[in-house]
Amino acid sequence: MAGRKLLSAQQIAEHKTPEDCWIVVDNQVWDVTDFLEEHPGGSTIIMKYAGRDATQAYSEVHPPSVLKTNLNVDKFKGILDDSTIDEEWIKPPPGQNLKVLLDNEKPPLGTLINSHDFEVVASKTASNKTWAFYSSAATDLITRDANKSCFDRIWFRPRVLRNVREVSPRTKILGGDYKLPLFVSPAAMAKLIHSDGECAIARACENKGIMQGVSNNSSYTMDELRTAAPSASFFFQLYVNRDREKSAALLRQCSANPNIKAIFVTVDAAWPGKREADERVKADESLSVPMSPSKAQNDKKGGGLGRVMASFIDPGLTWEDLKWVRQHTQKPVCLKGVMSADDAMLAMEAGLDGILLSNHGGRNLDTSPPSIITLLEIHRRCPEVFDKMEVYVDSGIRRGTDILKAVCLGATAVGMGRSMLFATNYGQEGVEHLIDIMQDELETAMRNIGITSLDQASPDFVHTADIDHLVPASRSHPYARAIAKGRAAKL
Amino acid sequence: MAGRKLLSAQQIAEHKTPEDCWIVVDNQVWDVTDFLEEHPGGSTIIMKYAGRDATQAYSEVHPPSVLKTNLNVDKFKGILDDSTIDEEWIKPPPGQNLKVLLDNEKPPLGTLINSHDFEVVASKTASNKTWAFYSSAATDLITRDANKSCFDRIWFRPRVLRNVREVSPRTKILGGDYKLPLFVSPAAMAKLIHSDGECAIARACENKGIMQGVSNNSSYTMDELRTAAPSASFFFQLYVNRDREKSAALLRQCSANPNIKAIFVTVDAAWPGKREADERVKADESLSVPMSPSKAQNDKKGGGLGRVMASFIDPGLTWEDLKWVRQHTQKPVCLKGVMSADDAMLAMEAGLDGILLSNHGGRNLDTSPPSIITLLEIHRRCPEVFDKMEVYVDSGIRRGTDILKAVCLGATAVGMGRSMLFATNYGQEGVEHLIDIMQDELETAMRNIGITSLDQASPDFVHTADIDHLVPASRSHPYARAIAKGRAAKL
Amino acid sequence: MAGRKLLSAQQIAEHKTPEDCWIVVDNQVWDVTDFLEEHPGGSTIIMKYAGRDATQAYSEVHPPSVLKTNLNVDKFKGILDDSTIDEEWIKPPPGQNLKVLLDNEKPPLGTLINSHDFEVVASKTASNKTWAFYSSAATDLITRDANKSCFDRIWFRPRVLRNVREVSPRTKILGGDYKLPLFVSPAAMAKLIHSDGECAIARACENKGIMQGVSNNSSYTMDELRTAAPSASFFFQLYVNRDREKSAALLRQCSANPNIKAIFVTVDAAWPGKREADERVKADESLSVPMSPSKAQNDKKGGGLGRVMASFIDPGLTWEDLKWVRQHTQKPVCLKGVMSADDAMLAMEAGLDGILLSNHGGRNLDTSPPSIITLLEIHRRCPEVFDKMEVYVDSGIRRGTDILKAVCLGATAVGMGRSMLFATNYGQEGVEHLIDIMQDELETAMRNIGITSLDQASPDFVHTADIDHLVPASRSHPYARAIAKGRAAKL
Amino acid sequence: MAGRKLLSAQQIAEHKTPEDCWIVVDNQVWDVTDFLEEHPGGSTIIMKYAGRDATQAYSEVHPPSVLKTNLNVDKFKGILDDSTIDEEWIKPPPGQNLKVLLDNEKPPLGTLINSHDFEVVASKTASNKTWAFYSSAATDLITRDANKSCFDRIWFRPRVLRNVREVSPRTKILGGDYKLPLFVSPAAMAKLIHSDGECAIARACENKGIMQGVSNNSSYTMDELRTAAPSASFFFQLYVNRDREKSAALLRQCSANPNIKAIFVTVDAAWPGKREADERVKADESLSVPMSPSKAQNDKKGGGLGRVMASFIDPGLTWEDLKWVRQHTQKPVCLKGVMSADDAMLAMEAGLDGILLSNHGGRNLDTSPPSIITLLEIHRRCPEVFDKMEVYVDSGIRRGTDILKAVCLGATAVGMGRSMLFATNYGQEGVEHLIDIMQDELETAMRNIGITSLDQASPDFVHTADIDHLVPASRSHPYARAIAKGRAAKL
Repeated sequence: MAGRKLLSAQQIAEHKTPEDCWIVVDNQVWDVTDFLEEHPGGSTIIMKYAGRDATQAYSEVHPPSVLKTNLNVDKFKGILDDSTIDEEWIKPPPGQNLKVLLDNEKPPLGTLINSHDFEVVASKTASNKTWAFYSSAATDLITRDANKSCFDRIWFRPRVLRNVREVSPRTKILGGDYKLPLFVSPAAMAKLIHSDGECAIARACENKGIMQGVSNNSSYTMDELRTAAPSASFFFQLYVNRDREKSAALLRQCSANPNIKAIFVTVDAAWPGKREADERVKADESLSVPMSPSKAQNDKKGGGLGRVMASFIDPGLTWEDLKWVRQHTQKPVCLKGVMSADDAMLAMEAGLDGILLSNHGGRNLDTSPPSIITLLEIHRRCPEVFDKMEVYVDSGIRRGTDILKAVCLGATAVGMGRSMLFATNYGQEGVEHLIDIMQDELETAMRNIGITSLDQASPDFVHTADIDHLVPASRSHPYARAIAKGRAAKL
Repeated sequence: MAGRKLLSAQQIAEHKTPEDCWIVVDNQVWDVTDFLEEHPGGSTIIMKYAGRDATQAYSEVHPPSVLKTNLNVDKFKGILDDSTIDEEWIKPPPGQNLKVLLDNEKPPLGTLINSHDFEVVASKTASNKTWAFYSSAATDLITRDANKSCFDRIWFRPRVLRNVREVSPRTKILGGDYKLPLFVSPAAMAKLIHSDGECAIARACENKGIMQGVSNNSSYTMDELRTAAPSASFFFQLYVNRDREKSAALLRQCSANPNIKAIFVTVDAAWPGKREADERVKADESLSVPMSPSKAQNDKKGGGLGRVMASFIDPGLTWEDLKWVRQHTQKPVCLKGVMSADDAMLAMEAGLDGILLSNHGGRNLDTSPPSIITLLEIHRRCPEVFDKMEVYVDSGIRRGTDILKAVCLGATAVGMGRSMLFATNYGQEGVEHLIDIMQDELETAMRNIGITSLDQASPDFVHTADIDHLVPASRSHPYARAIAKGRAAKL
Repeated sequence: MAGRKLLSAQQIAEHKTPEDCWIVVDNQVWDVTDFLEEHPGGSTIIMKYAGRDATQAYSEVHPPSVLKTNLNVDKFKGILDDSTIDEEWIKPPPGQNLKVLLDNEKPPLGTLINSHDFEVVASKTASNKTWAFYSSAATDLITRDANKSCFDRIWFRPRVLRNVREVSPRTKILGGDYKLPLFVSPAAMAKLIHSDGECAIARACENKGIMQGVSNNSSYTMDELRTAAPSASFFFQLYVNRDREKSAALLRQCSANPNIKAIFVTVDAAWPGKREADERVKADESLSVPMSPSKAQNDKKGGGLGRVMASFIDPGLTWEDLKWVRQHTQKPVCLKGVMSADDAMLAMEAGLDGILLSNHGGRNLDTSPPSIITLLEIHRRCPEVFDKMEVYVDSGIRRGTDILKAVCLGATAVGMGRSMLFATNYGQEGVEHLIDIMQDELETAMRNIGITSLDQASPDFVHTADIDHLVPASRSHPYARAIAKGRAAKL
Repeated sequence: MAGRKLLSAQQIAEHKTPEDCWIVVDNQVWDVTDFLEEHPGGSTIIMKYAGRDATQAYSEVHPPSVLKTNLNVDKFKGILDDSTIDEEWIKPPPGQNLKVLLDNEKPPLGTLINSHDFEVVASKTASNKTWAFYSSAATDLITRDANKSCFDRIWFRPRVLRNVREVSPRTKILGGDYKLPLFVSPAAMAKLIHSDGECAIARACENKGIMQGVSNNSSYTMDELRTAAPSASFFFQLYVNRDREKSAALLRQCSANPNIKAIFVTVDAAWPGKREADERVKADESLSVPMSPSKAQNDKKGGGLGRVMASFIDPGLTWEDLKWVRQHTQKPVCLKGVMSADDAMLAMEAGLDGILLSNHGGRNLDTSPPSIITLLEIHRRCPEVFDKMEVYVDSGIRRGTDILKAVCLGATAVGMGRSMLFATNYGQEGVEHLIDIMQDELETAMRNIGITSLDQASPDFVHTADIDHLVPASRSHPYARAIAKGRAAKL
């Protein structure tokens, strides 16, 4: 044992790395190298005092006896020789050099710790036009907000004392293996927020092993994305064109692209929604545009990016057209945008491979039902749907707990759209960081309800009573018959 | 093909109109005239760069390949001759000359995109007196706010994959054809906000093909309105006078006026409500009025415009009086202001032609039920009413989705009062703009729930479970009998 | 007819009183004296222009034809002689001399138009100590706020087309006749806000024909109140003293006082509640008080006025003691502070004359039930109570609609406490003004639901479904048996 | 009687102590010494005027007659001799020397009157790091807030006219006697807020007769706590170490320590929750830490104190391990962190001595159920649990009413964690003050619902209907079978 051996401040100061770390407490010098990783308070705080006097910080949280109790005697190195203390040695540890961020500067990626953070940063750093287009939703934003709040009103029923050392959120989607029950929901024009746009997303998804839905209105073509991320898995979100031939051409391209695992035909946007924030930015800009006045006066709606981009979409699409789609592709065909159990049943009868319950992020029809409500409606009214096809959910997913709730209630996987666009603000690295965050939140939630793989997830882990009254119980409104009769009588 | 033909900046700059539009991207010159209308992002943004270099804006949203892919080779006009670029040519496109609006100035009509906007503008630009009279409602504003929030708590059940290319909101009201299931609810003194007052509304309704309800307290007489809008359709809202002869005279005038399609007898204002914002403005003014002190002191209520204007209305009106009304007119007679299924049944038994469910915009009795709740009460308790007469709804309509919900639940048409007054702030053009907005919102909602005409509207497209508990199920309160018995015992 | 007779501005100016009033519109001079009272817009606005030119104000709201149409030709007096107009005549009408109020000054009484206004004024003009004592309630204020919000969640079911010309809110309470089903709830120390204190209230109640409950902690004795208002009707709110003899003396005084119509024994304050706002003000003051330190340190609770004033009240009071009360008075005996149907039944069995459902304005036990919930509980569980005794309600009454709802649901009358104290801020006149306001609101509500006297009030005019779930349905909590069994098993 | 005896101001001024106190009202001099304690307004206010003129303050609240009525004639001492009044005598009473507190200064302990006050003070005076670690909770804070609001939504059903003079909240916990059904919930690192840390808590609990739960992460060892408070009662909260031997050593120490009454095995923290406030402070600090960049970059989560401290906890703990715990201790063994009736049943079957329903203060899994909901779930689904073991509750307790509600619903005792840490800000005295406050609130609530000891507490005193729908009624979600079938069909 080191006994009363005197050590100079300078000697001690040499042991200041994670591989060789001494600290002084109450004039006693200890080698804490091996203890760094065991320290319940983490190694960071100790390393702040590596090679120096840690007495003050130590006594803030520990009783005097702790070091002696936890360290072997051979870790005691001697006594600080007070006479050797100089100004350099007693300098306070390097303080926080708080970088002052301008309001429109992006903070370091590592300081963003949840999906909301990405949204806040985008609101401050994206252009007004981009922010309006990405963040806006239909009219009074009721569906947009309910998408999230309905998840918040579902309670977990956690189970304890189950071995959750190893946890895996791996998932099978349409026969393929993915690391998470999470995909990127297709969203238009990712290039608005980062020059790499959908390519950045593709590379991130490739690295992280999740699927990417690519929008018909993507800033990059499918070929460009495949070049960017050669082993990535995509599904293609088709908006069927009024000019069918153009859609046929797209389907042919998809068929030739092995990275595309499925076609998702969009059905929740028969007509472009009224996204007022988007319309307002457009309306301002048009004031300074050298157009003929009569035209400007004609477009009294305002004219958001979302609406004008939708002009080619065919509002005449019907179930019959799906057969036409089938004729142009061998890939699995799913519907994107089912909002009722009735259409889920029709999709099942039409032999589709899957349905994505979605209200387009609340962007199209305000007071259309939150997707998680539609998921519950399917359970209540036609659970056989789950036997025949895969069911996905998007709109409102912000947390790992949201993912887990959807999966517990029968979803195969869930999609995130807006959040991924906001993460693209930081390019590929931003999207990867967001995926990591979602995975960590999901795994934490799985462990804390007591499961280790998603096939253990079941409705028994959630309690939905706070929103069950929002779930339709039958095909008809209770008063439907009365009105029909009234209408008939008057005709 | 144009090949390597060099074009000077000045040559290019000549092609800068919608009929002849070239742009430069990456030094390549393209003729985009035919593409203007097809551009998913709209023509406006392209026209900003007509005859100039659009490279920067282009690459923000498009991958390099897009132009080549979308345009025929004959649209390629040549290569920009760098040496010809001058200062004039590289000037940034005309910026937004943001006009700074004073807080009490009306913004350009085209920038108003929903009914709320009109309300906000009126709150800033109308006189205090006008704003207080129009916007105020009874005491604690509970009914006024519930009128709107009850609509918000009704969820749609949208259906997908239905052909909604052509949509029509045409409606039959009392046998007449109208372009919308929307009428202007009668409201007093439109002249307060615009010198054209009800005449502006009449001309707008005539142009847009909807019906106008004219208030007994209109700033203009029925004859003046008919002169202003000779082919318009009106209904007259009668407040029965304590002096019956004056009302009889009015009814005679109505009978002689072919534009008047119906008489609506007001029954939801037996006594003027306490609209405190209105009372407060009045009370301030009276301070400076040279009246005898004893009189001023007697009117301790404050004394709003709404209350003093109601002084002639007969609070003694009963069902018997409706027979008297019938004797003075051959036109259809409806009730305006039914707030319970019980009175809907009485109206049906009295052989009336229609009822307007209304709580006077929450202006008369606070915590009287929202009209949409009364509509549901009729379904629950006496659906036969719908067989025998038309049912209209006002109070709380702010969105096209609100109109659609009411129609789905059996309303023939709905009325908007306050919003129309606020739109009158801009005269006839303002009212037309609001009607256009409502029509656009309604058609968008129809398409997005999957219907193309209003006879397809049915309760099956809505889910009302979040407000169903507010709907009375029977004539009596569950405890009514207990109290009646108690009262009897004590007498 | 006056034809083209020219009148000078000075001639016209002489006709400027309500008894003789001319105005000029578009240079025509009209005698509007008889029309003043008929004017739908009230006489005030016309009188502003008496003897002067009203053209501008007139044309803001009226079409040109109105005067001619409404007035007899003999009211036309001639044409304004333009040449006679002088500076004096064209001066604008006297403007509003807006008096700037300091924040702690009381605005003129006439500008207060509801009970909330009195509260706002008191919050600004009463001393901190008075405001804290009057306004405070127990701990987290949940019951205080629910008292009001439960009334707001009860909806009316108004009926229309009933003759409501004459309305009367007269009421019988314990055999006496009162002009309103409203009494002043007993509240302590009214002198804090006005030197006349309870005497001001007594005189106001005497004038307005309503009953006053006098607190055991009144600033004035019963004898003083009787002197102030010799024909007033009181009930005395007894806090039974730990020293019974003192209470007996009070009861003897009451027996000798013919103005006292009943004794209300307080039972909702077994122990003083924790009113934190009140405690905080006290705690601050005590810092500067020359008391022995040991004593100050002992009173760690803070020490509000409400708590220290309650020190004499006996927490040992039981149903047995009510017999003792009966022995000391021949007057009717009621309980003040019943909060459950169970105790309502016990009161009935004890032969009491009435019960006042009250939670002491939320001042004693937070999350004790709102009184209107207790009223509903009695209906649900023991409606026979209404056959045997009168039931009153206080706590949360702020509007005439609240009064009407309570009466519809079986209350004989309701009390207002805090609001009356706040009105006492203006002395007798303030209390009278508040009573007038409440009567006006009550009569307006009665008319607008379609009744003319309170014996027509019944539960059928209200819908309570939004709060019915808060009403206990049985004596026991559903889980009571399970716990009792568990407890027994462990003992 | 003193009659007209003149007394000089100086003579009067000598009687200015609580033992000998004269005051002047309207020139009459009274000896109020004996009356001091009887004064309904407290003695403090009188002592302010001891030996001086109290006329003004007196007449603010009392009618003139009160003194004469309440005091014996022999207390009248004479008449003030006006001519003797000097400047000294008429000086106003000492005013409040309002001490201005800096925002980060602790106000005097006596001015804190509820548990919220301690939280507010801690938020301002603790270090950012300490505040973040103590106050943070998982992700969106939904469970943290619901913990409190669910208590607020339980209503009392108070009973009146019961003798509540003597009240006692004494409680038996695991056979031991305690003065309150309240213990200190184990919480880590109390030294962060006060150098005495858990020792201060131990001494306070010893003095006040309540039990202290000691965290595995306590700043002081169990031996140190026992030295600090030799007669205190503890339970030890065990986090089972991945290295079982270390836990075994701890259990051996516990066995040898007679002050430890039970072992509580933590089961609600299988994996550390994501406490974002905590993560954010850490993330900021790490910027300035001299660690290798690769390591810093790897820890993208942020890295809160709570998470790093949890690294030794074994996520593999199962019901089997409880047998191992039993082998290492003879003390009662309880579970800390049960969140479902299912696990309560398993705990009962495993023969445990008690369960602490807890969601770790909402710190681990957001939207895990509030503990009071779990308590109700046990009643609904397995009330037999109460027969076999003790049930405790923590998470959300802030008021004496919360304690009483939990006990009424079957809890043996409740724990407070965060609040106790915040009180430790003031050392031992602060914790004692908080315990006094909780006891006072609890006793006040007991009296005001009409009980005097906790064995009278029962569910009949509460109404839980506002939260009953949040309580699961069965083991399975209604849709569980449908999904299971769907899953099976696809495999």
